[in-house]
Amino acid sequence: MRWGFILYIVGSLLFFLGFSMLLPLVFGIYYGDNSIAPLLKAAGWTVSAGVLLFVGFRKQRETSIRQREGMAIVALGWTAVGLFGALPFYLAGDGWSFVDAFFESVSGFTTTGASILTDVEAMPAGLLMWRSFIQWLGGMGIIVLSIAILPFLGVGGMQLYKAEVPSPVPDKLKPRIRETAKVLWKVYALFSLAEVLLLMLGGMRFFDALCHAFTTMPTGGFSTQNASFAQFDSLYLDGVVMFFMILAGINFSLHYQMLRGRPLAFWRDGECRFFLAVVMVLAVLVTWDLYRFSVYSSLGQALRYGAFQVVSILTTTGYATADYERWPAMSQLILLACMFLGASAGSTGGGMKCLRIMLCFKYCYKEMFLLVHPRAVTTIKIGGRSVSEDIMRSVLGFLALYVALFGLSAIVLAGLGVDFVTAFGAVAATIGNIGPGFGSVGPAENYAHLPYAAKWLLIWCMLLGRLEIFTVLIFLMPEFWRK
Amino acid sequence: MRWGFILYIVGSLLFFLGFSMLLPLVFGIYYGDNSIAPLLKAAGWTVSAGVLLFVGFRKQRETSIRQREGMAIVALGWTAVGLFGALPFYLAGDGWSFVDAFFESVSGFTTTGASILTDVEAMPAGLLMWRSFIQWLGGMGIIVLSIAILPFLGVGGMQLYKAEVPSPVPDKLKPRIRETAKVLWKVYALFSLAEVLLLMLGGMRFFDALCHAFTTMPTGGFSTQNASFAQFDSLYLDGVVMFFMILAGINFSLHYQMLRGRPLAFWRDGECRFFLAVVMVLAVLVTWDLYRFSVYSSLGQALRYGAFQVVSILTTTGYATADYERWPAMSQLILLACMFLGASAGSTGGGMKCLRIMLCFKYCYKEMFLLVHPRAVTTIKIGGRSVSEDIMRSVLGFLALYVALFGLSAIVLAGLGVDFVTAFGAVAATIGNIGPGFGSVGPAENYAHLPYAAKWLLIWCMLLGRLEIFTVLIFLMPEFWRK
Repeated sequence: MRWGFILYIVGSLLFFLGFSMLLPLVFGIYYGDNSIAPLLKAAGWTVSAGVLLFVGFRKQRETSIRQREGMAIVALGWTAVGLFGALPFYLAGDGWSFVDAFFESVSGFTTTGASILTDVEAMPAGLLMWRSFIQWLGGMGIIVLSIAILPFLGVGGMQLYKAEVPSPVPDKLKPRIRETAKVLWKVYALFSLAEVLLLMLGGMRFFDALCHAFTTMPTGGFSTQNASFAQFDSLYLDGVVMFFMILAGINFSLHYQMLRGRPLAFWRDGECRFFLAVVMVLAVLVTWDLYRFSVYSSLGQALRYGAFQVVSILTTTGYATADYERWPAMSQLILLACMFLGASAGSTGGGMKCLRIMLCFKYCYKEMFLLVHPRAVTTIKIGGRSVSEDIMRSVLGFLALYVALFGLSAIVLAGLGVDFVTAFGAVAATIGNIGPGFGSVGPAENYAHLPYAAKWLLIWCMLLGRLEIFTVLIFLMPEFWRK
Repeated sequence: MRWGFILYIVGSLLFFLGFSMLLPLVFGIYYGDNSIAPLLKAAGWTVSAGVLLFVGFRKQRETSIRQREGMAIVALGWTAVGLFGALPFYLAGDGWSFVDAFFESVSGFTTTGASILTDVEAMPAGLLMWRSFIQWLGGMGIIVLSIAILPFLGVGGMQLYKAEVPSPVPDKLKPRIRETAKVLWKVYALFSLAEVLLLMLGGMRFFDALCHAFTTMPTGGFSTQNASFAQFDSLYLDGVVMFFMILAGINFSLHYQMLRGRPLAFWRDGECRFFLAVVMVLAVLVTWDLYRFSVYSSLGQALRYGAFQVVSILTTTGYATADYERWPAMSQLILLACMFLGASAGSTGGGMKCLRIMLCFKYCYKEMFLLVHPRAVTTIKIGGRSVSEDIMRSVLGFLALYVALFGLSAIVLAGLGVDFVTAFGAVAATIGNIGPGFGSVGPAENYAHLPYAAKWLLIWCMLLGRLEIFTVLIFLMPEFWRK
């Protein structure tokens, strides 16, 4: 384990993070609000910390990363960025405790969207922009993580994507990550820009449009409004955001292929078909449920709100146009299931991911098939390619750990004095990186009222979910620290 | 698929079932209540149906059973027995609808203990005895199923036990099942008898003692009292029942070894150690939770009720001495987790089973270990023996199906008009064969108020859980019916 090298990389991350605080600063200056001082101070601290690590360890720079070092960089990087990203909030005073600032920052970088703010609209524009912008930065991190780093680390079955993205320099990891990242970031930025323009066409002012584009593409879900997206109350805007949430829930390498002139890429990809089918089936079911219990007066209204919420939760974005806690039980349970399912692997979404669910279905079917034909030789295929036993093993291990850690965390959360449904909902919503949960952390509420210890636990859950569990858990293994 | 042979075996089961209705009849006659006519009629119908199948298909008798036929016998046998076992209730009139009678009967034979009775004490003694007796018969079935049939069928990892039980004729299945069953049934009957005596020593009248012994050893949980076991309100009786619930939650082949003079068998068995450790840890946690929130005035009281409920739910019995829905959230979530965990494999308990949970833990650890040491060669061991990839595959497939079917059933149940928490709790409590759940089917309530469609769904869940999922699901595969 070359810690100097790891700190060198974390240092360069912080350096970049410090400079990125200048974007919200521009808005703070334009609106002349009191976010200028905290943003300037935070940028100073962050850039300094970055330079200190970067310069201090520059001699320990290496050309290749080992597997264990990759894990350390990912986990340490996300935590460090979460800590320093909390500075603008913390330095703003206004009653921000340290854990609240850290919670909001980690919720941003992990693109969860769980908030401790009781009054979003009272925030100065600069801080509001920073809050959205960290989700966008987090989304950039996830694209690199899920398409370039995790396949290489062999975590949770993501090694399936090892050969997925065309890369000009296939042999060495660093140039490969860099090239892949660049290509996908272009797609990410392009979609974000398109969303800003389309939202403004619908009458949204530039500031709100930018903030929402910053939180749609990473499936983050922070809004600038207390009533979340319901505030805008426009069918057109709902449609635009739904469209981009769906795009954000699809593997970004498919977008890249599509933009290179292969529009059939979506259709050829098994996971993408599965994801779109799940969206459609669940949207229809929820619409039907809302309509038969007359939650909305017309079928059109039921479809509008039902489909929006299914897309928002399944992609793990977490915008709300309706308080789904007042919906019938089946709709609520479907949304709860969506929190676990999640979006596609290789997208910015969280949860278990459609790919793993698909593989798990195929696996169960194979298991039953073998009971009928014990001597048959069967392989699990995805998109025509057969999936190795190793990958299947990682996928099942991931799913088992996900469920086990969910249960354990919910019990501990309840032990901290949180009620039954909230404990359940809050853990499902943070480990899946959704944002709003059930109980007292539903779409019409927030996480402010939870005890401090509960917030720490949920910070842990957000990181656990975002970094695909293994990358965080491995630090608890004695074997990791030996030799 | 030799259907004649399958029906021949089902016929012999029904024949036996019909005669077993004579036991409750004795009580009906003794107490002179109005259960005599329905029991006599039901016995007549059942014996006749049995004789008809038995004699009609006796020429298609075979000496060996094929794997698929084994599945068919198990699934068809349990359903047929459930149907005919419902006759005494249905023929009693008294407002018993057919689905209610079937629900109560399947709940009995699967040793679930979920009841649709709003006033248990108003039942005639004969029917009350029948209701308890079918749980005892169901438990006999499960012992054969889990120790002799499932290992042979290779379902859900139970093939681990293939060589577990010493058998005088190891080559042929039928004598093997018969010998194994005989030995284990002796243990089962012995324990039941001991429990009757110990309960009577505590002042319980013979009828109640017999009924409760009939429902403890199969981890069934039907009681003769409206207030369940709380009615007796005796520390001694609570202790006796707890002791026998724990025994019933342990692999019966260990009891056999113990009775043959190997008392260390419990300690040597990894699953048994795990099960007992889980009982202790969770009992301590719940006791602490009850005490700190002052649910009970003394630590002793908290321990008495906390430990009883943990044992009752974890072993999937379902007796209640307290309404746990009024307990703090952590205790409730721990009990919910217990519903999923379940007792030992090879016991009469339901749920996922400790063995599978243990194997799953070891599997996840191995997966993480491989991330640190990618080239290490590791095997998963249980009790010194290494577990093959095939068995591990079955176990993981089982767990995945369990969770998936739980989620799906809960959503469908909610779609039938049941509220969020009840849908969740009722499915967890029936698929795990516990009995009382959460919401409106808690320990102080019952299943009577649910709509008919919901009862059918829960009947399906009870069978699914009891027959280890695969044995039921396989009938839905087109491949099963081909050729």
